[in-house]
Order: sequence, then C-alpha cells, then structure tokens
Amino acid sequence: MAEDSVLLAAVSLLSAAQQAYFAKQVGNARMKYKVIPPSVTGSPEFERIFRAQQNSIEFYPLFLVVLWTTGLFFNQEIASIFGLVYLLSRYKYFHGYADSAKGRLSGFKIGTVTLLILISLSVGGITNCIIDKYFDLNIAKKISKLFL
Amino acid sequence: MAEDSVLLAAVSLLSAAQQAYFAKQVGNARMKYKVIPPSVTGSPEFERIFRAQQNSIEFYPLFLVVLWTTGLFFNQEIASIFGLVYLLSRYKYFHGYADSAKGRLSGFKIGTVTLLILISLSVGGITNCIIDKYFDLNIAKKISKLFL
Amino acid sequence: MAEDSVLLAAVSLLSAAQQAYFAKQVGNARMKYKVIPPSVTGSPEFERIFRAQQNSIEFYPLFLVVLWTTGLFFNQEIASIFGLVYLLSRYKYFHGYADSAKGRLSGFKIGTVTLLILISLSVGGITNCIIDKYFDLNIAKKISKLFL
Repeated sequence: MAEDSVLLAAVSLLSAAQQAYFAKQVGNARMKYKVIPPSVTGSPEFERIFRAQQNSIEFYPLFLVVLWTTGLFFNQEIASIFGLVYLLSRYKYFHGYADSAKGRLSGFKIGTVTLLILISLSVGGITNCIIDKYFDLNIAKKISKLFL
Repeated sequence: MAEDSVLLAAVSLLSAAQQAYFAKQVGNARMKYKVIPPSVTGSPEFERIFRAQQNSIEFYPLFLVVLWTTGLFFNQEIASIFGLVYLLSRYKYFHGYADSAKGRLSGFKIGTVTLLILISLSVGGITNCIIDKYFDLNIAKKISKLFL
Repeated sequence: MAEDSVLLAAVSLLSAAQQAYFAKQVGNARMKYKVIPPSVTGSPEFERIFRAQQNSIEFYPLFLVVLWTTGLFFNQEIASIFGLVYLLSRYKYFHGYADSAKGRLSGFKIGTVTLLILISLSVGGITNCIIDKYFDLNIAKKISKLFL
C-alpha cells in the first residue's frame, strides 16, 4: 500500500505544514494587532487573517478526502499535481485576504475549480470500482481495449 | 485495498460534497443578509446558518475517523449505511438550524446517536484486531465457531 | 493493511472521542454561562472554553495527517506513542485554557513540539519511500547494512 500512496502522503504532509504556517500567521497577527486571546475581533487586519485561516481549515478535510479518493481510485500522480495546485491557490488566497477582503477572490476561485476537478475524477474512479466490484464489469478496461 | 474501502470512499466523497454545499449556503447567506467578509455577525439568520456550518465542520474529521475505523476493522457495508444516516442527520440539522435555533435539535440528536454507534462498532473491531495481533487470539472467530 | 495500522486506528478513535468530549464541554459551558445559540460571545469563561475547542479542531486534521504518515512510512508504534502524548497535551491545553488564557500555554507548547517531531519523522519516512520508488535506492536499508 505504501508505494501506491507515497505521493499522496507527501502532498498531505505539505498541506499539514501549510496549515501550521497559517496558524502561525494568526498567532503573529494576534501579537502585532494586540488581539488578546480568547478574543478574535477588534482589528480589521487581524480579522481578515483570522477568517482566511478559518476558511482554509473549513476546506482542509474536504481537500484531504478528494485528494486521497482521486489518488487511490483514479491516479496517484494526477491527484498529487492537482493537490499541489490547490495548496498554491490557498497560499494566494491567504495572503490576498490578509491584504484586503477583495484580494481573497482570485485564489479562492482557482482553489474551487481545482476541488471540482478532483471531485469529478474521484467520482469517475469510485464509480468504476463499484461497478467492477458489484457488477463484475470494468468500464475503464473496456474503453482502453477499444483502442488496442 | 481499493475494493475493501470503495464504499467508504464513496460515502466520504458524498460527505465532502455536503461540506461544499454547506459552505455555499453560507456564501449565499452572506449576500442575502449583507454580511460583508471578514465579519461573521450582524444578522441572526446569517449567524444561525454560519453556526450550523461551523458545527458541521467541527464534527467532520471525527465522522471521517469513525466511518473509516468502523469500515476497515468491523464491516464496510454497515459503516457505510450508518455513514449515510449521519449525512442525512446533518442535512436535517443544517436546515433546521437555518430556520430556528431550536430546529437544530432533532437532527443533532440523530447524528450524535449515529456517531456513538459507529464509535462502539469500531471499538469492537479495533479491540479484536489488537488482541489478534499482539495476543494471537481472535475473539470474533472463536465466537462464530461456538455457533458452528 | 489492517494489522499495519490498527494502533493508528486506535489512537485516531481515541482522538475522535476526545474531540467529542471537547464539544460536550462547550455544550455544558453554554448552559452554565447562559450563552444562547447561535451566539458564541458574552461570557469570558465560555469564550475561553469555546476558543480552546476551536483551536483543538483547527489542529485536528493536521494531527491525523502526521500521525498516519509517520505510522505508515516510518513506524506505527513510535507514531502511536507520540500520538498519545499529543492527546495528553491537548487535554492539558483545554483545561488550562478553561481556567485562564495563560493556562493554555504549557499544553500548547508540548503539543507543538510533538507535532514537529511527528512531521520530522514522516518527512524522513516519506523521503526514503519516494527515493526507493522513483530512484530504486533504499537509504534506510543501506544504513542498516553498514552496521551489520
């Protein structure tokens, strides 16, 4: 199993490091804008950085699910590449949002499109696997045979 | 490995789509009730929808953990059925909460009971597997032999 | 696969139970300090407990990722031990934060160090596995051969 998922594991680890990085930025912003815990309001700059992190957290388990379902049931390398694109889009989103509320939009759009692609790929891979298991019919193999 | 977990993957993917759906509802509510980012307060309607989503996010990794531990160590089909029940309960919770604070309760209770069942099943499955691995004793097999 | 990950599954299940426990504490604090849903402010005691839970949620998927990548690519037993240390540090953090904002610090530091150790171990394990897969070179085996 390890070899079939090592790239997914590497992207997941990178994404975990990114989550830690975002959390650190919020901690730094707390100090800079003097927002004392447990408060999370009081400075618009802090609130933007905090919301940017919160939104990244909201989408993080969703991202992990589609990264792994695509990687295990469709193709590991393709899933990992889109996974990296998603992490870049989140980086852009985070720092865009930190600058201004409007600045979050372009990174968010790239991220959403990437997630939709990953969802589509895993729907394809999982559907094929379910049909194969329960109806003894492998569509992906049949299609590739057509071209051989 | 793929065949042993394809139903778990399908339920996980469905749950990821549900999380995306909840996030979209919050985005729509932002527009409708004019709550400008990064603010998350100002309209009771928006606040209920936002809290409903936040609560669903809080329970999401927990749900994924018990879905997969039950599926891998107890039974994939049973885990998937309870997984679907949980997703329905969350749907009920979300829209109930959007209507009124009280409206969240019935969906929440069904969800909590479902999680408790999944936790119990995975405790059983994992305990049996640990005893089997470290003490060379498979209780589930012994019990089923009693009846043969 | 099941036997190679049963301890990781057990620690994950324990961590899921801990998340449920934290959520229950917030529910109890809502009643005690009369903070009516969907509000999350109004009492400093409630706000500290709520933030303690929120912070634990933020770090939870990150924790699961490094627990499993360390366990699958480095060593299951070592990953599980550090996983348990992390859960203890979170317990300390939660109850420390409930007492006072300053009380969160010691638990948080232990947790952060534990996460950094898990990240380092999985970077090692994953790097070795990638080099082995794509460059046909297993460094861990070579090093262990030097000593035989």
